[in-house]
Amino acid sequence: MKFQPPKGCRDFYPAEMRLREWLFERWRRTSIRNGFEEYDGPIFESLDLYRAKSGDQIVSELFHFVDRGNREFALRPEMTPTLARMVAARAPSMPKPIRWFSMPRLCRAERPQRGRLREFFQWNVDVIGEDQPIADAECIFVMIDFLRDVGLTPDQVVLKINSRHLVVAILQSAGFAEEQMTPVLAALDKRDRLSADAFAEHVGGLGIDARQRETLIHLGDAAGPDGLERVGKLAGNSSDARQALATLTEVFALLTSMGVAEYCTFEMSVVRGLAYYTGVVFEAFGRGGLQRAICGGGRYDRLVSDLGGPPMGGVGFATSDVVMLDVLDEFNLLPDAAEPRGLFVIDAGPDCFDRVLRLTGELRRRNHPAIYSYKRQPLSKQIKQAVGRRAARVIIVEEPDATAERVAVKDLDTGVQRSILVESLLADPFQALEDGP
Amino acid sequence: MKFQPPKGCRDFYPAEMRLREWLFERWRRTSIRNGFEEYDGPIFESLDLYRAKSGDQIVSELFHFVDRGNREFALRPEMTPTLARMVAARAPSMPKPIRWFSMPRLCRAERPQRGRLREFFQWNVDVIGEDQPIADAECIFVMIDFLRDVGLTPDQVVLKINSRHLVVAILQSAGFAEEQMTPVLAALDKRDRLSADAFAEHVGGLGIDARQRETLIHLGDAAGPDGLERVGKLAGNSSDARQALATLTEVFALLTSMGVAEYCTFEMSVVRGLAYYTGVVFEAFGRGGLQRAICGGGRYDRLVSDLGGPPMGGVGFATSDVVMLDVLDEFNLLPDAAEPRGLFVIDAGPDCFDRVLRLTGELRRRNHPAIYSYKRQPLSKQIKQAVGRRAARVIIVEEPDATAERVAVKDLDTGVQRSILVESLLADPFQALEDGP
Repeated sequence: MKFQPPKGCRDFYPAEMRLREWLFERWRRTSIRNGFEEYDGPIFESLDLYRAKSGDQIVSELFHFVDRGNREFALRPEMTPTLARMVAARAPSMPKPIRWFSMPRLCRAERPQRGRLREFFQWNVDVIGEDQPIADAECIFVMIDFLRDVGLTPDQVVLKINSRHLVVAILQSAGFAEEQMTPVLAALDKRDRLSADAFAEHVGGLGIDARQRETLIHLGDAAGPDGLERVGKLAGNSSDARQALATLTEVFALLTSMGVAEYCTFEMSVVRGLAYYTGVVFEAFGRGGLQRAICGGGRYDRLVSDLGGPPMGGVGFATSDVVMLDVLDEFNLLPDAAEPRGLFVIDAGPDCFDRVLRLTGELRRRNHPAIYSYKRQPLSKQIKQAVGRRAARVIIVEEPDATAERVAVKDLDTGVQRSILVESLLADPFQALEDGP
Repeated sequence: MKFQPPKGCRDFYPAEMRLREWLFERWRRTSIRNGFEEYDGPIFESLDLYRAKSGDQIVSELFHFVDRGNREFALRPEMTPTLARMVAARAPSMPKPIRWFSMPRLCRAERPQRGRLREFFQWNVDVIGEDQPIADAECIFVMIDFLRDVGLTPDQVVLKINSRHLVVAILQSAGFAEEQMTPVLAALDKRDRLSADAFAEHVGGLGIDARQRETLIHLGDAAGPDGLERVGKLAGNSSDARQALATLTEVFALLTSMGVAEYCTFEMSVVRGLAYYTGVVFEAFGRGGLQRAICGGGRYDRLVSDLGGPPMGGVGFATSDVVMLDVLDEFNLLPDAAEPRGLFVIDAGPDCFDRVLRLTGELRRRNHPAIYSYKRQPLSKQIKQAVGRRAARVIIVEEPDATAERVAVKDLDTGVQRSILVESLLADPFQALEDGP
């Protein structure tokens, strides 16, 4: 019987695994140099945890099951509920702000399609317990620090930044009622995928009065360098809007000081998912052919308290391995995923094989990657096998005597071969050949 | 509402996560230097994959669920079925031997108890497509290479090595029938937890004749340096037993050449799980207070073909993070899990904060871990915060001028403080202070 991986899930053969590890390593080193600490939780959580955050309708989007005690669990579809649960459990004893990152494996019961799998990985970065705009700016900086690290330029990717608080305050001061917010924000969210005319038509269909329509169209157009100034006029006398505008302006000033302004732009139509965010929101947008958000985040205020913790604000973002590898591929920024090149130890005759085994063991013990042929065969065949495994150097054991002081080392790229002291080889097998005998 | 992690699952707060990452990094570097390549598969597989390998009775030990299309899946309880499925799918196109490792997250619907969790991680190492004893020896070497790497000595841990093939051949030649194998192997497996008398009594209850009892008691006692010789006598004229003995003897000879004989011993009572292994079997046994197997493996012949692939033998082992961290803790070999020590950038006054942000950004961009205080506060308070975060150095920005060439750098351990060129600092912030101004 032949088996397949489940639909929408991936097998990671060594080539794909190296690419995944390369991305994880970039996520991890960016997080650590920015002062964030890694955490993780279980792959499944109580189903009630997700109900508490997202309501009953989330259940159909989850893989869920019961244990023998009939307790309901679900595979985690996102990391934030776990994060909030863990912070809530220890909040009083942890120094603030809490600066954590994670690279969770997540599962969603979706119909698989391009860029949406049933199993994927995310990079999550969060600052919790700090309400000042510096935390928002720091999160955005971390995202840019990663994008820059993998070689994405401001021509290829842009950080679109906005404030949900600001949008809502302006809409309120323009007379929008509470129950209009959801459809109006959803309309605004579509702005960047529509032409100005198409957006105006869409807004016309919302059943709002002419002045409200005009406000909404102005908001949709407010973007780019002078956008904040134009929004300042829309804010009028609303103190909520003025305050949100001041926060957003400070975030941009901080990002300028941090040296990453060239990646950042203001765009009022960026409002991100609906129920979750309360303040500054942002997304990294790929400017290539795919034209899509590759990373999104923002400030949330009620999450920790909703899951049993004290009231603590936070700000964070997430991106997935699927979309990130797609965008890097689009811009030809994926690394060569070939196996790293090591050493291949060869016997000049079967009586030297004992020494091959001992020398290989000694090399490995010193953390030098080294392999040998499982078959006893002529030297030329062993070299061929070494070339097949893309070895950088072959080490040829020519004397069976365990006390022999030397072996031959050959660079498979240059063809240079020298007799080298075993002692020098063990100390640094790559340098040994350069240093000469 | 307050939520807990599911019973038998762990939250990894940063301190636990650093320990986990430390262990993973040791597993990974040992694998890579031994020439193994990493792979991974989905966290859930078709339930039929596990039924195919282990029969229907496995289902109750799994967390399983259906998707909207009513397809049955299960969280993976072990990695081997996934490995066999992946190898089976591509076997003809892959160069042999296949030398792969993985560090999967696994889930089992068990009642949680000490050393047995519902969610844990494993290190899996396998060589597939090589039938010679060198592959068995290599797997055992990899395990020892890891044990040595984390500081476990031959006094603390021993590799018990045996051959299922040899045991079965001797039992057959002693007249044991096929249907007696399962209870007799199970009895032998208990040998090392019983005294000689208790074992003899246990064997007496098996309903076998006096000659068979004697053979079994001899097998149970066959261990240590002269064990193989004693077994040679039991093997008699059975050609199967002679062949198995020759293979096992060669494995020991290879391990001696590899320089790890001091970790290895022969023990006839090590038979490992019942249905799975066909040849050499082995386990690493912790000699401390816990007295238990910490890692086990062996040769399997039918796994790949059972799951739809060509007939290919393999040999491999697995160990878990839970048992490995327990044993390292027992021998005081766990590393200090404190956060790595980085840089803390401080302003000598609020007007210097802009430069703090810019300099921090530049340090991070060069992959130097650097943080700063989110609050503008007196220098002494910022230093206190740096000490709280265990920073190694503080960098004090004393001039607001963006073109200023110098900053002060202070070693928080020695108290040494010097004025340093920003340029030298960025090149190597740790060396800069040693080099002087």
